[in-house]
Formats: sequence, C-alpha cells, structure tokens
Amino acid sequence: MLKFDEIKQIDSINGALALRGRINEIVDGICEEGYRNICWLGIGGTYASCMQTLVHMNELSEIDTFVENAAEYCATGNRRIGKGSVVIISSVTGSTEEMVRGVKKAKEAGAKIFGFIDLETAALAQMVDYEISYPANEQLKFFMAADRFMFNRGEFPEYGRFYKEMDEYLANALIDVEKKADESGREFAKKYKDDMIHYFVGAGNQWGAVYSYAMCYWEEQHWIRTKSIHAAEFFHGMLEIVDRDTAVTVFVGEDSQRELSLRVAKFLPRICGNYTIIDTADYDLKGFSKEFRGYISHLVMHAVTQRIDAYIEQFNCHPMEIRRYYRRLDY
Amino acid sequence: MLKFDEIKQIDSINGALALRGRINEIVDGICEEGYRNICWLGIGGTYASCMQTLVHMNELSEIDTFVENAAEYCATGNRRIGKGSVVIISSVTGSTEEMVRGVKKAKEAGAKIFGFIDLETAALAQMVDYEISYPANEQLKFFMAADRFMFNRGEFPEYGRFYKEMDEYLANALIDVEKKADESGREFAKKYKDDMIHYFVGAGNQWGAVYSYAMCYWEEQHWIRTKSIHAAEFFHGMLEIVDRDTAVTVFVGEDSQRELSLRVAKFLPRICGNYTIIDTADYDLKGFSKEFRGYISHLVMHAVTQRIDAYIEQFNCHPMEIRRYYRRLDY
Repeated sequence: MLKFDEIKQIDSINGALALRGRINEIVDGICEEGYRNICWLGIGGTYASCMQTLVHMNELSEIDTFVENAAEYCATGNRRIGKGSVVIISSVTGSTEEMVRGVKKAKEAGAKIFGFIDLETAALAQMVDYEISYPANEQLKFFMAADRFMFNRGEFPEYGRFYKEMDEYLANALIDVEKKADESGREFAKKYKDDMIHYFVGAGNQWGAVYSYAMCYWEEQHWIRTKSIHAAEFFHGMLEIVDRDTAVTVFVGEDSQRELSLRVAKFLPRICGNYTIIDTADYDLKGFSKEFRGYISHLVMHAVTQRIDAYIEQFNCHPMEIRRYYRRLDY
Repeated sequence: MLKFDEIKQIDSINGALALRGRINEIVDGICEEGYRNICWLGIGGTYASCMQTLVHMNELSEIDTFVENAAEYCATGNRRIGKGSVVIISSVTGSTEEMVRGVKKAKEAGAKIFGFIDLETAALAQMVDYEISYPANEQLKFFMAADRFMFNRGEFPEYGRFYKEMDEYLANALIDVEKKADESGREFAKKYKDDMIHYFVGAGNQWGAVYSYAMCYWEEQHWIRTKSIHAAEFFHGMLEIVDRDTAVTVFVGEDSQRELSLRVAKFLPRICGNYTIIDTADYDLKGFSKEFRGYISHLVMHAVTQRIDAYIEQFNCHPMEIRRYYRRLDY
C-alpha cells in the first residue's frame, strides 16, 4: 500500500495512548487545585481539533469550556481567560507565531497553560506550565485530557471501560480502516483529483474533520479549492448552488450529530449526481462497543482520508510537502 | 438609486432603536432576578448574527456567554443550557424548524427565552418568555440586548454616550454609506457577477458579515458559489489556492480585529490580481465618535453590500427572492 507503514502507525498510536498516565497526573493536579474554566486555544488545524473536543464536551459536561482562535484572542482578548483558567494547546512546530503570542497573553492574564508540543525544544515548550512532548495524534491527546476532566467531575463514568478498549484495540482498528479504505480512497482520488472546487460537509466531530481536511490538506497540501460546510448549515444557503455536477462529499460519523449529516446524505441524490458519502459505520472497529464508536469517529475518518491523500498526491504529481506561500513569504 | 427607499430605511432603523426601552426593561428584569449564562441560539443567518454579538462581548465582558447552532443543540444538547440560562434568539419567519425545536428543548431544560420575532403571530412568538416583535434589524436588536447586559455589570460604561450617538446619527449615517457605495457597488457587481467561486475574508464582527453574506446572499439568493474564511485562518491553508485570477474580497471593519483583516489585505497584492478590499473606514459616519465606529462596522458593511446585491440581481437577471430548493423540497 502506498505511503503506509503499519508498524510505525501502530507504534505512534500506542505511544500516544501511553501518555494517559502523565496526562491524568496533570489533570488530576489541576482538578485538585480547582479551576474556573477550560479554554482550547488553537489556529488552523489545531483550531479544528479544539472544535472537535468542544462538541464532545458539550454533550457530556457542564464544565465552562470554550474554544478560542489564537489570532482572534491576540487581537480581541477574551476576558474570561484569566486566573483559574486552564488553556490547553497543541503544536507540531511549537513556533507558530499566533500561538506563541496567544500563550504569552494568556499567561499574563493569569491562566495556566497545558501544552502538547511535538518538539520538546520549541519556543512554546518552554512557555507552558504543564508540558507533554510527543509527536502527532493531536486529537487523541486532546480527548484524553477532556475525558479526564469530565471523569473527575463524575460526568464520564464509562471512562475506565472506554480506555480499556482504546488501549487494546484502537491502533489495530485504525490500521484495518486504512486497509479497507485503500481501494475506495484510490477511486475517490481518481474521481475528484481535477475538481475546480470540492465541497466537504460534516457535523459533530466530523465538522472539525471536514474543516481541517478541506483547508489543511486539499487547499494547503494538494492546492485544490474546497469549501467546508457544517451539515447543520447546509440547508441554510449552500444547498442552492448544488447542481448535477457539483462535487460534494459528506463525512458521516457516529456521534450525536450523525443525524445532521445523514439528512444531507439523504437529500443529495435528488439534486446532485457527483456526491460521495463516507460513513464511519462502514468500518468494523474490532473490539469497540457500539456506544463508544462515536467518540472515535474523527479518528476513523482521518484513517480514511489518509488513503485518499496518498493517491491524490500520486495522481496529481504534487508532493504534499511543498508550499507556495506558507512560511515562504513574509506576511 | 436602484432598490433604495430612503424614508423606509430610516424609519426601519429608527423604529428598531426605539425598541431599546422595552429591551432594557426585559434585560434589567433578568439581571435583577440573576442569571447563570447567556446563550445566543441561531441557525444560518441568525447564527452569523450570534457570532457577531459574541465577539463584541468577548472583548468587553466576563459574562459566561456562548453561541449555539440550533440544529447542533437539538442533536447534541448542551449541558450548560438549563436553569439560570438566558437563551436569546431572533427569527424572521418565526417558524424555522430547527429553531422551534431548539427553543422547546431549551425551555424544557429550564432556560428562559428572549426572542426577537419579526412576526408576532408566529409559532416561536408564542413559545418565548420575553418577546419583542419588530421586523428586520436583527444585529441591532442583539447588540442592544448584549450592551445592556454588559452595562448592568459595569462593563460598558460608555453605554449612554454610545446610544445617544446611535439614536441621533445611525439611520442617516447608514443612508449616507449606501449613497456613497452605490457606484462602487455597481462596479463590484459588474466585475464579479460571473465568478465560478468568490472568496470572502473577514474578522471580528466582519466574520459574521462575510459568513452570512457569502452563504445567505450569494449562494442562497444569487446562486453564485462562495467560500467565506476568517482572516485569522486565511494564512493556515486557504492562501495556497490563491493565484492571479482568484476572486477574493476582504471586508475590513474597525473593531478589535481590524488588524487581522488588514494583514490579509496587505498580503493579497503580492499573489493575486483579482481582489477587492472594502474598508468601513472609508465612510464618514457623521456624528459618530472614533471609539464607537468599530461597534457598528458590521452595519456599515451591510449597507455597502446592499448596493452590490441590487446590481448583481439586475446584471444577472436573477430575482433574489427565488429559491431552487429551500423550503421548496422536503428534506
């Protein structure tokens, strides 16, 4: 399989899951001290992961928690970020300008910063109050932290059972998804590689998934134009520009907002002849209880889209690591 | 001037401003009783107005306040909406399905509903705890409510001075904007009427402006494809698909996030030959103090886009009131 290293991926996921002990130590300490609110601070792809974590928490928790975009926070501020706030961040490079400034501002306001920084030596790693350094698996890290906060308040009693399944089965389940999605990923890439614009629709934890997939993969890495739209909003404007040839893909997950995406999926065939539905329910996820499938739908979808990316890169002869402008020009 | 009725528009704005006494009675009553948090609940265009109100409050207030999308709330719930919550809504038709269900759910959870319903006899008007019925001017209504909540907490001491200027000058200032924007609106419409896709970029209260303008006007009413992108996020993906011929418009306002949009505006000329910057600072706004201009930037931009709409409708021979699918098919 193209761009697929089974051992490496299994190790990466299991290594991330193994961080849970250290995450819990940090979270338990914060909970013992007490906190006022939790802010998920991000930009670009990390902003999308923040949104995924928030929708998960909104369903289960009464914790005062919200998402902030780092650039917006630097410009506007947020008076709810201050003493007693826990600001949680993730950064691959550890040097994104808006994040460095946002963390500085939040610290000055009195917040404590909990950072997942891929690179231990990076600027951000030196600035945070609590740090965990491990590459990739950002969403998994965020969800482990969120779940522990909720567990400590008695809002996530299934925590023990859920993470038992995660530790035992997640890595292999996602590998199986990639294997099963390889052929359909190839077909998807072949069908849509020349699109002038491609629409991605999703809801729940698939909203962050379509948002970042459209922007950080197709636009940034494949240089293909996209629009991502929340399934809840699809019927309030965008539907009018869909016709027979409009390329539309719906990401359907299994969390609480599955119904919103299914509504779009059910409607599309009446007005569109160029759509694709990707449904996480089509994958086995061996070992996982039905009740927990929704909590990992975004990870499943990511495994699916990795297969699409491998083939688009090949068909379009466009290496995903090149950038036209990003970090190549001053702006 | 095409589609322009000066007297009618002045009366509409002044009528909305005159609601302030009744709004204050309601808000003051709520504040006296005490409340836990404020939720701005919307979908589509009203969701955009909610986002505009939130960014305004984030800058000035420590009130626990957040935005919820009505369809997402119906699907996922939000455990922070309950006893002590004030849910604020606006609805033109008063019958939008997701809003009716969302309000029902919030009421059952114990929240009080404060509704601006254009049509007094509509379903939603019967369901809310506090109701104000007056057509159009949604953003103005939301901001008047938000400002009063903040004033009552001592977070908006300039309230009296600001609304003195609003009452005296807003209607005429916006009429002057429309007059000045007529010729440029015509040129804009002529230049971009055939676009395959048009990008709108904005930040602060211009983010809700670009979001709803792209979706509720160009997509829904003109049937032209668009993508709206937050200026903070522009540099984290979308920039890579901009080239010489890409049609990009930046809405620049004068609130706290002006700098984010200016950053995009400054960068675009290097990579794009088909962009337009619309800056609210180019309009006089007679009677308004400099410090207050940012609070009405979204209203100024709306006056500008009204001129664009009038000409696109004419040039494209596409009446804005027709819909292909919206409320014409079951979905």
